[in-house]
Amino acid sequence: MRNIYTDLALEMAEQLGDGLEGIDMQTEQIDNIKTTTISIKSEAGERNMGKPRGTYITIESPDIKIADIDAHEQIMAILTDKLAVLRDGLKIAPQGSVLVIGLGNRDVTPDALGPKVVSKILVTRHIMETLPKEIFGGLRPLSALAPGVMGTTGIETAEVVKGLVENIKPDLLIAIDALAARSIARINQTIQLADTGIAPGAGIGNRRMALNRENLGVPVIAIGVPTVVDAATFVNDTLGMFLAQMSEDTPEFLKDGAAFFSMLNNLEDNDKYAIIRNTLDPHMGNMFVTPKEIGEVVRWLSNIIANGINMAMHRGIDKDDINRFMH
Amino acid sequence: MRNIYTDLALEMAEQLGDGLEGIDMQTEQIDNIKTTTISIKSEAGERNMGKPRGTYITIESPDIKIADIDAHEQIMAILTDKLAVLRDGLKIAPQGSVLVIGLGNRDVTPDALGPKVVSKILVTRHIMETLPKEIFGGLRPLSALAPGVMGTTGIETAEVVKGLVENIKPDLLIAIDALAARSIARINQTIQLADTGIAPGAGIGNRRMALNRENLGVPVIAIGVPTVVDAATFVNDTLGMFLAQMSEDTPEFLKDGAAFFSMLNNLEDNDKYAIIRNTLDPHMGNMFVTPKEIGEVVRWLSNIIANGINMAMHRGIDKDDINRFMH
Amino acid sequence: MRNIYTDLALEMAEQLGDGLEGIDMQTEQIDNIKTTTISIKSEAGERNMGKPRGTYITIESPDIKIADIDAHEQIMAILTDKLAVLRDGLKIAPQGSVLVIGLGNRDVTPDALGPKVVSKILVTRHIMETLPKEIFGGLRPLSALAPGVMGTTGIETAEVVKGLVENIKPDLLIAIDALAARSIARINQTIQLADTGIAPGAGIGNRRMALNRENLGVPVIAIGVPTVVDAATFVNDTLGMFLAQMSEDTPEFLKDGAAFFSMLNNLEDNDKYAIIRNTLDPHMGNMFVTPKEIGEVVRWLSNIIANGINMAMHRGIDKDDINRFMH
Amino acid sequence: MRNIYTDLALEMAEQLGDGLEGIDMQTEQIDNIKTTTISIKSEAGERNMGKPRGTYITIESPDIKIADIDAHEQIMAILTDKLAVLRDGLKIAPQGSVLVIGLGNRDVTPDALGPKVVSKILVTRHIMETLPKEIFGGLRPLSALAPGVMGTTGIETAEVVKGLVENIKPDLLIAIDALAARSIARINQTIQLADTGIAPGAGIGNRRMALNRENLGVPVIAIGVPTVVDAATFVNDTLGMFLAQMSEDTPEFLKDGAAFFSMLNNLEDNDKYAIIRNTLDPHMGNMFVTPKEIGEVVRWLSNIIANGINMAMHRGIDKDDINRFMH
Repeated sequence: MRNIYTDLALEMAEQLGDGLEGIDMQTEQIDNIKTTTISIKSEAGERNMGKPRGTYITIESPDIKIADIDAHEQIMAILTDKLAVLRDGLKIAPQGSVLVIGLGNRDVTPDALGPKVVSKILVTRHIMETLPKEIFGGLRPLSALAPGVMGTTGIETAEVVKGLVENIKPDLLIAIDALAARSIARINQTIQLADTGIAPGAGIGNRRMALNRENLGVPVIAIGVPTVVDAATFVNDTLGMFLAQMSEDTPEFLKDGAAFFSMLNNLEDNDKYAIIRNTLDPHMGNMFVTPKEIGEVVRWLSNIIANGINMAMHRGIDKDDINRFMH
Repeated sequence: MRNIYTDLALEMAEQLGDGLEGIDMQTEQIDNIKTTTISIKSEAGERNMGKPRGTYITIESPDIKIADIDAHEQIMAILTDKLAVLRDGLKIAPQGSVLVIGLGNRDVTPDALGPKVVSKILVTRHIMETLPKEIFGGLRPLSALAPGVMGTTGIETAEVVKGLVENIKPDLLIAIDALAARSIARINQTIQLADTGIAPGAGIGNRRMALNRENLGVPVIAIGVPTVVDAATFVNDTLGMFLAQMSEDTPEFLKDGAAFFSMLNNLEDNDKYAIIRNTLDPHMGNMFVTPKEIGEVVRWLSNIIANGINMAMHRGIDKDDINRFMH
Repeated sequence: MRNIYTDLALEMAEQLGDGLEGIDMQTEQIDNIKTTTISIKSEAGERNMGKPRGTYITIESPDIKIADIDAHEQIMAILTDKLAVLRDGLKIAPQGSVLVIGLGNRDVTPDALGPKVVSKILVTRHIMETLPKEIFGGLRPLSALAPGVMGTTGIETAEVVKGLVENIKPDLLIAIDALAARSIARINQTIQLADTGIAPGAGIGNRRMALNRENLGVPVIAIGVPTVVDAATFVNDTLGMFLAQMSEDTPEFLKDGAAFFSMLNNLEDNDKYAIIRNTLDPHMGNMFVTPKEIGEVVRWLSNIIANGINMAMHRGIDKDDINRFMH
Repeated sequence: MRNIYTDLALEMAEQLGDGLEGIDMQTEQIDNIKTTTISIKSEAGERNMGKPRGTYITIESPDIKIADIDAHEQIMAILTDKLAVLRDGLKIAPQGSVLVIGLGNRDVTPDALGPKVVSKILVTRHIMETLPKEIFGGLRPLSALAPGVMGTTGIETAEVVKGLVENIKPDLLIAIDALAARSIARINQTIQLADTGIAPGAGIGNRRMALNRENLGVPVIAIGVPTVVDAATFVNDTLGMFLAQMSEDTPEFLKDGAAFFSMLNNLEDNDKYAIIRNTLDPHMGNMFVTPKEIGEVVRWLSNIIANGINMAMHRGIDKDDINRFMH
């Protein structure tokens, strides 16, 4: 069985089940926040997961998308810790410089996550030399850019980033992007960190060239959050739920309709998805689904992620400093 | 049979079929643009349509949502004409003042239509007295406000508008709003004008108190464009298409599954919708579906509508003047 | 000697000197923050100050306009206290409702202070009834609107506000506005609170009808911050400084030029200002002066003021809650 | 006599007077629009002007900053012509690709000109290959980026541009920037084109590394518009006007004050400016002056410039097409 491709390593792993060769998976639960660390350690693991070797950390919480601010601070703290883990795994020196890239289109609400994060980064690269050491002792040279999307610039994002990396030579790149989820239940609930860069084709726009060490020559930590699902995925999901509901509610029909029903249910997910894509394409192939509250959720997420980056990358800065610096 | 409620009179009429008592319907087609005028003329018509007496004009074109600018200018011209028809039907005097209200949330792309239209209105109310007559001879006192949404102001839109109307006493109110369509095929393809005001509960936000002559004491022309569909509607639509596709592709199954399949197909639309709403609610009740190009389509729509209003309300102004004034 | 009119009671009082009839003035200094409370208590005081009876509180600190965040939090705390003093002086009940109005043009950076404050207000008016008492026990019904400026709406601000007040009947109105300072040294360093409303003609735009109890029927606390100086004021200030500098640097010239120099120096401020206005008018009468950092200073100021309002108006909310709610 | 440095070649030339070695100057007047073409042709010319060899075209009109739209269209047509002259002078092939760079800070109104122009460029580079030849026969590959300012990115603009140029290898770069004028009379009245790139230190921000052929390896057309004056310049200008006014109004004083007055008047402009800078520095060194209407003037200017670029770079596109494409 071939599985549906997904940007989230966690979804891949869930489809594949336990005990796979070359894959390590560990889970922590703190209150309402579940953190899963998946390590792909060998070629077999890469083959199994369809993803390059590296560490994929998923922070999941239903509280991301509601106004529970204590939970948001907890998530920010965990994100900070995990970013530090990836940073150390990549052996970035304490004074190593970091370039933050916010992918996506600032004019489309659920795709504006990256640009919004960039606007909240505590950039220091341009002032490192002019300020007294006691103030900036713990700070790193941080810079940040939102390069826009190809539809409005005519330039592929990776082209902008590649040129920039060659010129300012950061020791680490952090790329933030809004993703398209493969499950409606995951929208605005999941933050994925990966030390392998960003795979092509994600999100609302079509960004094709990968931002990773092969293409750019520097390590790339990707931070992705599913903020939309595409239309076909959405229908696929809800069709499943609908059929389940029908089977519960109307058992008498099932005796008669058993074959049709079980045919529907037994369709490979890939096949069902293909039929749906096919059905939808002429009418709404380019539609996406997102919650009505997306505006404020993107604002919350951009705070969580920007401040997680600020705290993980600048040493000696804590939550209070961040609240101050960024206010 | 009870029909699904829809903001679009045209959809209502299509569900009901021809020859209904108290309802008049006329259609014009120019190139790719279809204009339908529905008049509800009696109590029977009101009962049949579930809408108050008045004129409902729908301008439909698949070209609204693509970059065919000649078509956009044609649509703008038709919109201008039809606004003038409604204006004259309401007996607004040549010098009568007009207040334009842009409903919706400027921070959520598909809901920002109203605020964007407002920003392009040629407001003149504050300068009518100070400028020479030969310049402003053809202009009307026009004013425009985007009052925001209740979630960010704490105030119901109608409360802001009511107070404003009482103070500046316009002769006509024009309200623009993004609507939720009941059919995916209608998103960004339809502009509805109505001289009866805006019915409650439309669109992405929840705006409850109607903007109409009863509540405000002035006639209200509503301009609505469906820019999203809600999640349940979307699934309902696509489920239908999916089942149709299935029945075409897999006839052999249908013999066996006939009862189940025909049960699905024979569900009243209302019942099917209810089951779907039920299925979805806990997971995604508040989701909406919109196309990826929504950013630029809303920009185009706001130009078409704003300039239609400018031309219909200010006499002696044509498309070239508008291009000039608004650039 | 007639004095130059200024929106700041403090500047008026400084021009007039000590011991004026009907005027009380008290000063507190905490670290780098000076707070001055001026009470105008009688008709004589009104005449002397050219301002209506009431309390005017000025919070001054050079740290407002630099990134010293500890100072910003101190200022926010003092602002909260002083807003509470004015609120209690006006006898607003603990559950009394408050409407916050952000004046100014969101598209011109130094005039966008009011709209930015509004976007950060914790509005609750629309949810007071639907939420459990234990959560909202300490909250007041708060609502907030940025009505735009006459140039883009065609409507005088006071007309929008008046209608709104008549409809939602708040117990208190708080109006925030960017002001034009009469001294360059005061830009972005001074927050003035007044329980007498906002005097006409202030700031960058021309807003003429006053927002006060007479016009609106509810008490009005005005919060004003000078973010610009107008061109003539700026030249007036710098001409003075230039002449002082010249007299220091070139004493030998002064013997000869004494009459001209002392003529310049002895011009009444009003006369000098009039000559300058005259000189400037055809060329730059409508220019304003503002610092390059105005973008970030307005952001800081909007946080200080919005959170001061949030804390002073919602009971039981402290700085941490605010950081949480608003992030 | 050393002259004050200015970004505008025209101001340089006016200071220097006629008949300078190595400099050619030609003027055209159409209605209210004056166009001056200055060619610096030799080393002597470079020395005299303090600027590199090349062509500098200045389009001046008082109508830029008022709502005279016919004049705006005239200016747009002249700008288009002159851009074509520079393009041809640089021998850019008909299919040569062009990268448009919008300098400046989108969050500070008078500095947002560049980013606003970028948002209105008809980018085609990413779709040249996918579209039918008959449609795109006259189009060039155009791309556009607004790289932000160092204060918010931590990266010098030229670093972003250099990397991008190396990667996408355009045949021509066009850079748009808001400048600081050296004369208040010039704000928002002058558009300068130069085929020599952008000199460092211009405008509101501090952008130091030049965008020119030496640094980037491609020819650079710079489009600059003075939208502000810095505080010291403003005072310098107005001091001069003030003194002139004084000498007219109060001749009797001048006899006595002659020496002081003539001292003031005889100060080299550079010295006077230095004294003023000195006087101002501690208090307002970083202030700028701009008109109250800056918001709408920047919008008009961005339309004029963006559409001038669109028409000059894409062949076979006229004003009507532009109105259509960009609406």
